[in-house]
Order: sequence, then C-alpha cells, then structure tokens
Amino acid sequence: MTNPNYRKEDVLVEALPYIQQFENTTFVIKYGGAVMEVESLKEMISQDVTLLRKIGINIVIVHGGGKEITGLSKKLKIETKFINGQRYTDESTRDVVQMTLAGLINKDIVRRININGGRAVGISGIDAELIKAKKFNEHDLGLVGEIVDINSGLINNLLQNGYLPVIAPLGVDDMGVVYNINADIAAGNIATSLNAVKLVYLTDVEGVKLESKLISHLSKSEVQKMISNKFISGGMIPKVNSALGALSLGVQKVHIIDGRVPHALLLEIFTSEGIGTELVNDY
Amino acid sequence: MTNPNYRKEDVLVEALPYIQQFENTTFVIKYGGAVMEVESLKEMISQDVTLLRKIGINIVIVHGGGKEITGLSKKLKIETKFINGQRYTDESTRDVVQMTLAGLINKDIVRRININGGRAVGISGIDAELIKAKKFNEHDLGLVGEIVDINSGLINNLLQNGYLPVIAPLGVDDMGVVYNINADIAAGNIATSLNAVKLVYLTDVEGVKLESKLISHLSKSEVQKMISNKFISGGMIPKVNSALGALSLGVQKVHIIDGRVPHALLLEIFTSEGIGTELVNDY
Amino acid sequence: MTNPNYRKEDVLVEALPYIQQFENTTFVIKYGGAVMEVESLKEMISQDVTLLRKIGINIVIVHGGGKEITGLSKKLKIETKFINGQRYTDESTRDVVQMTLAGLINKDIVRRININGGRAVGISGIDAELIKAKKFNEHDLGLVGEIVDINSGLINNLLQNGYLPVIAPLGVDDMGVVYNINADIAAGNIATSLNAVKLVYLTDVEGVKLESKLISHLSKSEVQKMISNKFISGGMIPKVNSALGALSLGVQKVHIIDGRVPHALLLEIFTSEGIGTELVNDY
Amino acid sequence: MTNPNYRKEDVLVEALPYIQQFENTTFVIKYGGAVMEVESLKEMISQDVTLLRKIGINIVIVHGGGKEITGLSKKLKIETKFINGQRYTDESTRDVVQMTLAGLINKDIVRRININGGRAVGISGIDAELIKAKKFNEHDLGLVGEIVDINSGLINNLLQNGYLPVIAPLGVDDMGVVYNINADIAAGNIATSLNAVKLVYLTDVEGVKLESKLISHLSKSEVQKMISNKFISGGMIPKVNSALGALSLGVQKVHIIDGRVPHALLLEIFTSEGIGTELVNDY
Amino acid sequence: MTNPNYRKEDVLVEALPYIQQFENTTFVIKYGGAVMEVESLKEMISQDVTLLRKIGINIVIVHGGGKEITGLSKKLKIETKFINGQRYTDESTRDVVQMTLAGLINKDIVRRININGGRAVGISGIDAELIKAKKFNEHDLGLVGEIVDINSGLINNLLQNGYLPVIAPLGVDDMGVVYNINADIAAGNIATSLNAVKLVYLTDVEGVKLESKLISHLSKSEVQKMISNKFISGGMIPKVNSALGALSLGVQKVHIIDGRVPHALLLEIFTSEGIGTELVNDY
Amino acid sequence: MTNPNYRKEDVLVEALPYIQQFENTTFVIKYGGAVMEVESLKEMISQDVTLLRKIGINIVIVHGGGKEITGLSKKLKIETKFINGQRYTDESTRDVVQMTLAGLINKDIVRRININGGRAVGISGIDAELIKAKKFNEHDLGLVGEIVDINSGLINNLLQNGYLPVIAPLGVDDMGVVYNINADIAAGNIATSLNAVKLVYLTDVEGVKLESKLISHLSKSEVQKMISNKFISGGMIPKVNSALGALSLGVQKVHIIDGRVPHALLLEIFTSEGIGTELVNDY
Repeated sequence: MTNPNYRKEDVLVEALPYIQQFENTTFVIKYGGAVMEVESLKEMISQDVTLLRKIGINIVIVHGGGKEITGLSKKLKIETKFINGQRYTDESTRDVVQMTLAGLINKDIVRRININGGRAVGISGIDAELIKAKKFNEHDLGLVGEIVDINSGLINNLLQNGYLPVIAPLGVDDMGVVYNINADIAAGNIATSLNAVKLVYLTDVEGVKLESKLISHLSKSEVQKMISNKFISGGMIPKVNSALGALSLGVQKVHIIDGRVPHALLLEIFTSEGIGTELVNDY
Repeated sequence: MTNPNYRKEDVLVEALPYIQQFENTTFVIKYGGAVMEVESLKEMISQDVTLLRKIGINIVIVHGGGKEITGLSKKLKIETKFINGQRYTDESTRDVVQMTLAGLINKDIVRRININGGRAVGISGIDAELIKAKKFNEHDLGLVGEIVDINSGLINNLLQNGYLPVIAPLGVDDMGVVYNINADIAAGNIATSLNAVKLVYLTDVEGVKLESKLISHLSKSEVQKMISNKFISGGMIPKVNSALGALSLGVQKVHIIDGRVPHALLLEIFTSEGIGTELVNDY
Repeated sequence: MTNPNYRKEDVLVEALPYIQQFENTTFVIKYGGAVMEVESLKEMISQDVTLLRKIGINIVIVHGGGKEITGLSKKLKIETKFINGQRYTDESTRDVVQMTLAGLINKDIVRRININGGRAVGISGIDAELIKAKKFNEHDLGLVGEIVDINSGLINNLLQNGYLPVIAPLGVDDMGVVYNINADIAAGNIATSLNAVKLVYLTDVEGVKLESKLISHLSKSEVQKMISNKFISGGMIPKVNSALGALSLGVQKVHIIDGRVPHALLLEIFTSEGIGTELVNDY
Repeated sequence: MTNPNYRKEDVLVEALPYIQQFENTTFVIKYGGAVMEVESLKEMISQDVTLLRKIGINIVIVHGGGKEITGLSKKLKIETKFINGQRYTDESTRDVVQMTLAGLINKDIVRRININGGRAVGISGIDAELIKAKKFNEHDLGLVGEIVDINSGLINNLLQNGYLPVIAPLGVDDMGVVYNINADIAAGNIATSLNAVKLVYLTDVEGVKLESKLISHLSKSEVQKMISNKFISGGMIPKVNSALGALSLGVQKVHIIDGRVPHALLLEIFTSEGIGTELVNDY
Repeated sequence: MTNPNYRKEDVLVEALPYIQQFENTTFVIKYGGAVMEVESLKEMISQDVTLLRKIGINIVIVHGGGKEITGLSKKLKIETKFINGQRYTDESTRDVVQMTLAGLINKDIVRRININGGRAVGISGIDAELIKAKKFNEHDLGLVGEIVDINSGLINNLLQNGYLPVIAPLGVDDMGVVYNINADIAAGNIATSLNAVKLVYLTDVEGVKLESKLISHLSKSEVQKMISNKFISGGMIPKVNSALGALSLGVQKVHIIDGRVPHALLLEIFTSEGIGTELVNDY
Repeated sequence: MTNPNYRKEDVLVEALPYIQQFENTTFVIKYGGAVMEVESLKEMISQDVTLLRKIGINIVIVHGGGKEITGLSKKLKIETKFINGQRYTDESTRDVVQMTLAGLINKDIVRRININGGRAVGISGIDAELIKAKKFNEHDLGLVGEIVDINSGLINNLLQNGYLPVIAPLGVDDMGVVYNINADIAAGNIATSLNAVKLVYLTDVEGVKLESKLISHLSKSEVQKMISNKFISGGMIPKVNSALGALSLGVQKVHIIDGRVPHALLLEIFTSEGIGTELVNDY
C-alpha cells in the first residue's frame, strides 16, 4: 500500500464519498494485543475513532488486554495457565482480569479518546448486565464465560446521546457471578446485536494469509474451507469464527486489519482499496 | 499562503481540533460574484460546505447573483440602472431578480451540494415569510427592500432535521409585495438571528486591504476608523457594515475571504493562520 | 350546482362533519393552466388551501406553468417545440422551465398563501433530491425526465412543523442533471408516496365528459374502458393515468374539478354533492 | 346585530383572518344558567366550541348548574338556602352539587361535543387536585370553598393531546374535603393560570348595561367605577370581579355575551363588531 | 393466610422481587360492592393502589356502585327493577346511574387516592368516547348497553403522564346516547385493550368456591367446566366470563380476591401465596 | 433506635408519605470504608438503593475504597505514604487506585445492585470527563487532584433512562492526566451539580459526636463553630467541609449515618426520627 502525498484540502474533500456512504451506520472495533503497547499507535487509534464518530459513524470499541493481565498476575504471583489457548480463570485471576480490563485499560482508552474530543464512556459487560453469560462448559476453564445474551439498551442510549462506548469484555450471570469473556467473541456478538455494518479487528498481523501471502477478500464459504483445511489456526480462530457468526446474523463486512500500520482504521475506511482481509457473505 | 503536501491520514487527523471547536455551532456563508462563474470553484465550494455540515457544523448559505441578473435583463431588453451602486428595481427587474435568484442560481447551488450528499434545500426570503421587508426609503430604488425582521423558524427546522438551507435574498412585506434584498445585508441579519459563531463572505477579492496590503485582523473600531477615513469603499461597504452589525449583536467573527482560492473555506476553517481578513469585536 | 344563501354562523357549523372526516389526512392538489392566469382565482385558491390547512388537513400543492414557460421562451427567442403534446426540452428551455417554475410561479403561489397566514414554503424536486428522475426514453424529448423515486422526507418534515409545501415539478438524477417533469404525473407520484386520501386536479375544464355531458363518478375500470375507446384524450391523459396509478397504490379518491369556479376546492370538500369528476377504485 | 345572508364558500373564507389571529391561543368559556336549558342552544354551543377547537384554538369549558342543583335538592327534600346570593352548602347539598355538576351536566356537555367530533373530556376540580380550595371564611356558607391554587398540569396535558377539557367547579383541600366553588370565579382563575387570551362568559343577559343600554366596551377602571357606583350588581358581580382579576394577571380580554343568541360564540369570534360587552385593561 | 410480624426495613426489602417483576406492567382493578361501604377499606384500597403506582405499576381502576344507585333511586321514588340480575334502566334510572357513578363514587375514589399522593383522574366511558356501546339486545333492559369498542387513547395518555385513571362504567353510542354498562365486563374489556398483565376483581366474597372450599387456582377449561356444571352462578358469572374473555385476548392472570381483607391488594401482589382465586390460561 | 415489629402490609403503606415527599428528587450517597467489608452490609445497601430507585428517587452512588487500595499496594510492594491523612499518589499508586476503584469495587457494587433489578451502570470521573480536575497544589501529594468542574451531562442521561449511576472518584485534566480524588469531596461536588435534595454519607461511625454523645441535628453555623473549636477532626473533616459546601450551593440536607446498622438508608428515609447526624442550612 502506497502513501501518496496530498494537498491538505483535497484530502478532506476526498473523504466525502466515504462519509456519505457510512453516515449513521454502526462500526464495532475490536482492539487489543501488541497494538496496545505502542504509545504512538494508541494515540493514533484514539484520533481515528474520534474522527469517525465526528463524521457521523456510531463507533463502539471492544478491547482486550491479555498481556497486561499476565503482567499483573506475575506481579501478584498468581500462576497463569492456558488450556487450548484460553486462560484458565480462577477467582484471583478473574479479579486480576477485572482490575486490568475495567480498571486500567478501559479507562486509558477512554481518556485518550476524550483528549481528542471524542466523548468516550467506558463500561463493562457487568454494567446494566450488558453481557449476560454463563460458565463455559465445553471443558473446565474456571470463570471463563460464554455469552448468553447482549442487552444492547445501554449502548444504544450512549450512542443516541453522542457518546462513544468503550466496552471491557466481562460477563455476568443471573446470580451476579462475573466471568472472563473472550474479547473477539464479545465484539462479534455486540456487532450482531447492534446490526453493525462493519466489524473491524485491529490485530497485530497483516490479515488472513495463505502461504504467507495476504488474502484481501474472502467469502464465508472460502473461510470455512480454510478452517477445515487448517489453513487458519491459533488466535485467528475466534476472530474468524466470530466473523462468520456476525456475517450470518446481519453484519455486512468483517475486516481483519493490521493495527500496527499508522492510522490503519482511516486507511481502511477512506481508501478504495482498503487494507488487510475483508470477509463477506457468499452471494 | 503555502500549500504543503501531507499524508492523507495525517490530514484527516489534523482536522480533529477544529472539529472539536466548531461542532454544533452555526456558520452563515455569503457566496456570490465572480466565484459563481468558475465551474471548478462552484464544485469545490459544494464539497467544502458539505464536509463542514458532515462534521457537525450547521451551515446556512446566502447567495447573490448580480451578473446573472444583468445578463437575463439584457436578453429581455430590460434596462439596468444603478443608483449609488444599487440596482434600481422596477417590477420587470424584480421578476428577473426572482427568476434568476430563486429559480436558477439557488437550485444550481442546491443540486451541486446534493451530488456530494449534502442534503441542501433551497428557499427564499419569501418562503414562510423568512425575510420580512419594507420598501427602502432613503432614496427611491423601486422594489429594493430593507429588512424588517428575520423569521428564523424555518431555517432552524431545516437545520434540526439535518438539511443545509440555501437562501435566495428576496423579502416580502405584509401585503405580499416581493422585494430585492442586498445579499450581504441578508447574510448579516440571518447570522445575527441564528446567533452564528461565524459569518463568512466568500468574495472575489483577497480581503480588506490598506495600501494594497491585505490586513488579516481588524477590530470593530479599526473598521469604523477605516470607513470614516474612506479607506473602505464600493462593494466592500455593505459587507463591513453588515459585519459590524452582526458583531454587535452576538456573531463572534466575520471573515472576508477570497473565494477564488481553491477550497478557501476549508483553508479558513482548518488551518491556524486562516486566509483573508477576520473582523472581531473590540475588547 | 346551486349556490344557496346561508347565515354566516350556520355555514361554519355545517363544515363540522367534513372537518371531522378529513382531519389529519393529506390532500395533494395539482394546480396550473388557465386557473393561474386569473388574479381573482389565484387569490381564492390561496384562501381555500389556507383554510383547509387550518382545519387540520395536510395540504401539498404541485403546480404547473406551461403558458408562462412558453411566454418567457418567446421573449428569449427560444423556439418552443412540442412532440406528442410534450415540450421538447433542450438546455436553454430547461433553464427557462426552472426559472419560471421554481423562480416565478412557485414563489408567487407561496406569497399569496402567506398573506392569508398559510405558512407556505416553496421547494422543487431538486431540493433534498425530492424527485429523483432519469431521462425519459420512450422517445427523445431532451431533458424531459420520468420519475424514478419520491423522497418524501422533506415534505413530511415541513408538514409536521405546520408548513404548507408548494412543489415545482423538476427532477434531478444522481449526476445532478435537472429534468423537466410533467406536473400531473409528479402530483400523482407525490400523492402515492404520502399515502394521500385525495388527489385533486384543479383544471380549466369541468371534469371528464362523455358526449359533452359531465360524468360525476367513474371507477377505475370505467376509466380504462374510456381510454381504450379513445373517449379520453389530450391533456386529460396524463391526469387520468396518474389518477389510475395513484388509486392502485393507496390514494382513495382522485378529483378532476373546474378551477374556474370560484372556491371550487371548498365546494368540493364541504358539500355533499361535490363538483367535477371523482375517480375511485373498483370494488 | 344583523345576520346578513352569505354564500357558503365566502363565509368560510372570511373566517381566515380570525383563524390567523387566534390560532394556538387559549380561550376559557364559562357556560351555565338559562343557556343550559334550551336544547337547541346546547346543541349549538357544542358545535361552536368544536369548530373553534378544530381551527386551532385551545378551548377549556367551565360550567355551572345552579338550577339543576336546586331541582335535584327539591326532589330529595333538601332545603335550599341562599346567603347573599350564595348557596349555603351543607354535606347533603354538597353531594347534590357533586352529583349534578360532575355526574349529570359535565357528562351531558361532553357527550354533545363528542357527537360533533370534539374529543371532550370531562373532569372536575377534584381530579388531579386541579382546584385546590379551602373553606370560604368571610361568613359561614358551609362547604362553599374559595380557590387557593389551580394545578393546570392536567388541563395542559389534555390540551396538548388534542382533547377539549370540560371542568366541573368543585374544589378539594389537603384533607380531601370537597367544596362547592363558584363557577364564574373558577373560570377566571383557570383563565389566569392558563394565560388565556380570552375569557368568555356565556350568560343569559345581553351584557353589561347602563340605564338599560348595552355597553359594548369597558376598561378596567370604568368597571371599577361602575361597581363602586352600584351600577353593577347581583350575579354580574362575581363575573366582573373575576374578569378584573383575570385582566390584571395576563388575560387579554373578557367577554360577557348573550348565550341565548344562536351561535353567539361564533358571532363574537368571527365578526369584527362582536356581541355583548368586552372588558379590557386600561392603557 | 397468616400475617407474621416483620421488621419494618425487612418488609420493604422483601418487596423488591415483586417490584422487579411487575415494573412497567399494567393492572386493571375492578372495585365495587360491599367493599365500598366500609370507610376503613376504602382508605386502605386508596393507599394500596397509590403504592402500586409509585413502584412503577400502571394502575387503572374501574368501579361499580349498585347499592348507591338503588339508594338514590329509592330517595327519588324511582322503581328499581332487575331482570335476570340486571338492572332495567329507563331514562330516569340512567340519570341516577350517571349521577351516582360519575358524580359521587368516581370523585370519592379519586379524592381518597389523591390524599395519598396518587394523582388520580376520574373519567367515565363517555369522556373521549372511551367506551363505545350499543343497546343490549338479547332482551330488553332499556338503556343497558353492551360494549362495542374501547378507545384506550385517553387512558394511555393519562398513564404516560403519571396519572391514575379511575373509570365510571358508562358507555355512549354514535348518536350520543348514554348507556349503563356492567362494571365487571367493562373491566375485562379495558384490561384486554390495554394488554394488562393482571385483572383483579376486588369482591366481597373470598373467591371462587367449590363445596364451600376456596379454590386458589383455576385454568380456563376448569372454569368452563364449572360454569357448564352450574357450580358458578349469580354475580360471579359476569366476572368469570369477562375473565375468560380477557385471558383469551392476552391478559395473563385474573384474580378474584376478597376486598374485605385489609390491604388485600398488597397481600395478593407482595406475597408468594397470594389470596383468593387466580384464573389462568390452559397450557 | 428501636425496631418495632410490624405487619407486612402496614409497613408498605407507611412508606407512602415518604414516597410522596421524595419522588423525582435526587439523592447522592457516599459509601465506603468498613461498610464495604461486611458481605451482609453490602447486600443490604444494594437492596436499599434499588428500592429507593424503584419508588422514584434518582440515586447516584459515589464510592471510596481506601483499604482495598492499601491492600493491593502491599501485594504489589508499593509503599503507602499518608501526608496529613491523604494518600501520596505516585504513578504506580495512581494505577493501583484506578484498578481498585474503577476495576474491582465499582463493578462489585454494580453487579450486586443489578441482582436486585437496580439497573446500575458503573462509571468513573474519567468517563465523558465527568470530573475535571487539576493537581492538588496546597502541598505536594503527587497525582492527588482537586475538582475543577463536574460535567453532569452523562449522569443526567443515565438517570433519565432509568439507570443508577455508580461513580468511582477519579479525575482527569485537559491533558488526560488521571488523578486520585477524595470520594467525600467528589460526592459533595456531584450533589451540588445535580441540585440533589439529600447527600448521605454512609460511614462507619454513628454520626457527629460531642463528648461521645451523638448529635442528631446541626446547622451550618454550629458545624463551623465545632470545626474551629476542633471538636471535629480526622476523616470527618472532608465530610463536614463537603457538607457545608453542598449546603451553601443548594443541597437541602446532608446526613452522616452509620452504615453498619442494617438497612441504615431505609431507616433514615422511611422513619420520622431518622438516624445519625443531619446537617442543614441556618435560617
């Protein structure tokens, strides 16, 4: 992808057709991993989401925080254990997850966006019982939850009043037990419940690759074939699975893009070619 | 003014502080004269106002159309007569004014903005008796009117529903008589009634000049001195007089800028130095 | 139809059942031709529509202006050419149409209604892209357009805020090209999109006639038979065709009435027998 | 006052300037006495208030019912006693008042208006504690109350939803004791609390008279002089006193008109000369 | 049913699950008969309904008044005649019904609730033509009506503005004729039209009994069997028939409870066992 | 304070006058310290605030968390230093504060309230820049902030949509720096900005004492005298100072009550004597 030089005023004007296209639609943006560790990237993402909000797109952010959770666990001498790539979550770990996600990372994202005028409000799946969950029961992962329902009322209230919701992926059941929820899956479920037109995964890879070549466009059936052929694996699995679910339930496009590229979001939205991999329904 | 080159995504992000500053405020833009005759300028102004609307600024356009009026008058063999720089307006001329402003120019501005997604609606001072007027009576100018009152209800309705009002400067009295109204003065009165933060005159001069040097900043008292010293004259007089009136009644800044510069509006709003002459209250 | 004499207060009271019947419904009124040339008729129609608006009927006016267009064309030495009764519209003619309809006639109707307190607002099909059109392509008529879609949002906004929309029948396509649109057809399409209960053609004939006898009531199938038997022809064709379309798509009644009768609209609405021809669906 | 003959459609149109003048204003109409005993008058008043409501005037009716109260008292063998022209109200009498006003007369007025489409809702000063009262204590009148406060919230709610409130003049204190309230005074207080432009007393006299000549216009100071000179007396006293109070507190005009004239209300509103006596503030 | 003793603060807290369950739902409460004659019961019911309103339940009251009607008829020497348990209603009787229900009882219930802060508003089926009726024609009962339609607009308006509607069961036809309506049936129809979750009959019996044993729970089919077996008879018939109708049309539960038990309503709502008989749909 | 026994239904009814008094008013409740460590107290407070919300009181909670902060600091081997009773807050400590307040405690309060149906939403002073702060500069306390402004927009939005806001006392400046804010002072400022009628400090003392005797009522001037006489000291100082400030700026009453008493809040609100110390303005 080239970055040609522009005259300032021309660039602004070139944004017009994209504004026209996306005005009053909803994007859900999942944001986490390595992208979160580089100061300049955090700053740029804050600017990007604020800009998208200002031109009339409803932006909802769902964030992760795996490395910070592991870091705090270490400092508190709590053992970190992964089973099939998922964090086993005992009660101490769940508290670490809650402190890190809802306390540190959520508020850090919020304050950065607000410096740019973005009116962010940080909430978690616990607030107004936004993410109703139950114990994950395929195999025992302690307090890892799976999503039962999304109560999108609070998100819609915040969007209608011009706020930008930033959501920490925690869940809660009817008894008030708090669960650790996979952020990729939460983003997919929230996008579905909001009838979002786009779900964007800001990752630390270039996109979906086949034989180390980036694939820029994939249909649902192509993704399914790649999964069954094991061409997709690891942390990419919950993303593409959530993507497939979201596409089935009304989300128009899912993007897996490289958050390490400066202003990756703006490049994806405001250029015709886009970046990363775009997943769409079959026709 | 230099036009440095930028990277596309950086330009968009640099707009953020200006968006933050002007969101939900109202700008009234007067637009006419030579600017209206260059196809590319008309196109760029349409893009500029649409962009400003999309980022949350309430835009109201007031337009003139002197040359086109004279042109149609000639074709219809109606004599054009100016008294102290103002068009003597008999009934035939008033019909030409009405046809040109409300019929041709107003709709031409509207259709150009709408191609860009700007949701423009063209109205005149006759509609909903927006500009209440009476016969100008300093000396006889026929059906030239002076403004008695602005009924801003219709403009506010359109703005609240996301439309961009484009206003042809005609006035009407209680008997239904239609008057030709000076567009510069109409823009000033409308800006005042809407409590606009900015009133922008997009002209075909660089701004207010003293000994052929552009003055970039003027306070009310400095303007008054320049007028009484006859350093300001001709078509600039109704602009600065309306500017002074608007500043007295709550408008924060009046800008007289060069509409011949490509994307002059964006340069004025999105750069720290601005262009042209800016008029402000004394402190 | 006789015009018996009444006591003032009794007349007002006799209006009650009609008010009860039509409150909060929508009427679309097409108005043009000879009716537009008689000062007293113009005055009376302004009073009538204002009165209907005041008693709670949503009134939308669509106007024509053929004679005035031909008149201005002549003055400007632009040749007028009709093909199958439709005006061939080259670019110069289109500008004449636009000036006459949106500039002169539209604003003249508006100012007359407003003298009576009717809160009229004049717009055209160009404004907010109200009438989306494309080139008419049955045979070449230049910039004559056929209607692709009616965006009724702006009309509904104006009605909800108590305004009386007056619409000049111009259309616009995605590229911003402006088209001349048949006013009778525009009225039919607008009535359909607003789910109007009545569409009224104020014409300069008594109604639909058979062997020079006025027919006061016609069903859809009777009209179709009359068309195929060539008992209906000329300028009546677009009216009855639009009427048939509107009736198919939800409009309850179409009236073709004689606008030359003083206060024809009031007589139609407030008397049990009505005037002119009424077209209804078959049962 | 003559009743010239009119053509139906002209009469309707002549109503326009009055509609324009009174649209969206509030009238309080007091209605009682002999007017209530003539079937045709009751019918006509129902039509008149419905018509006024339909053309956009907020109508509130306050009614009396003295003769019916006396009638029912007689049948129930309850003695009727008047002290200084006011009904001494023991508990049995208060129940008779409540049954007659809130039960019989209020609902009779309501049903008549609703036949004409007027959407009347009958309430009393007890409902939502609309008329807060206390025991009248100038001299002992039993359960006769004087008004402490008007809670106009319910009336405004009904008006905003398009209803026509009909109010029985009963009051209630903090303990829930129900009082008999003078209808003329209630009407004056309600008009004041609603900031009505007109308060109309539909009486069974021609208006205020001096030496048996009807006076058509009186200023506040003229009325005060007439009272102190004892030119005004009897049942006219609470009317003019309430009128003076209402005029002091913002009501623009009070009319005392002859309800026995057919359609007296329409004649008052829709003719330039009006009928009866009009009371206004001094200037 | 036992009445254990509680600590004040615990009782309040135990109400929470019931509040959570019924918040924002609608209850229709029929109230009449012997319950209305005991001062302390009237006081307690006023408190109960106010409390239910305050915790977020939409309460609508429908009341009867048979004994009071008979009482007033006697005093007025109007003969009372019952046919198959229904009051034959000639014109004099209808007036007595109207005075008693809309004048005396309705306002008495209203004022009692308002002392407790309940914002009650008393209306009848005549107001805004809330209960559209026609002459009962199974056999001649004079002006006894059967319900044709419920116009619930006014009730919904009052509920949305925080009022508590109290409804006198009178009906009106298109000609404005007023009918006496059975209160039990009116309550059932109103509950259906409001899509109420509960319809409660506050009666002067313990509930539905079989062989003098109270049955606490009955399904629709069980009730139908009891009716056909004549185990249900007398005044219980219109209650259970209205109950069956309401259950068929969306009401979830109907309760027939003993209004002579102090605070019967609160006991029914806020205890798990409830009191009286509860009727539900079959599954 | 005695805890008499009650019949369940009587208790509910006795709440009515208090509901009537406080409906639609706003209470701010500060909650922290020892109260937070007893499971049963936490449960009871959740029930109490939910109940108050359900009966129509707008409840806003501000919470502390000093012990938990010290606890986590210890585990992370971060030294805790107090200067004049205030926590010196370096960057590591600020992160601990943020994690504990916004991550652990805030969400724990929220989930407990939501089990009872209270619709709580946890936010912090960072969200939507609710608490604008600057560095405390009386003496150096690191990142301890003092409040510059309360942006109550978000709180009002949440209240209007039926949510119960729970606020972690963190502040943010224009640069996005996050500060540790004293919870007592935050509660006072928020109560003022919301024009609350009550500000309640749920503490772990009985109230304000003089010579170990609880004082149940204190006026502003009495408090000021006690402060200057050093009869008030320690952690009570920021409470009474915030109380004085809030009273000066429109809050009607401040209560310092003993959160260790079961259902202390309900006892304070629903009994005439109340508990703890109540502070009011002088008269």
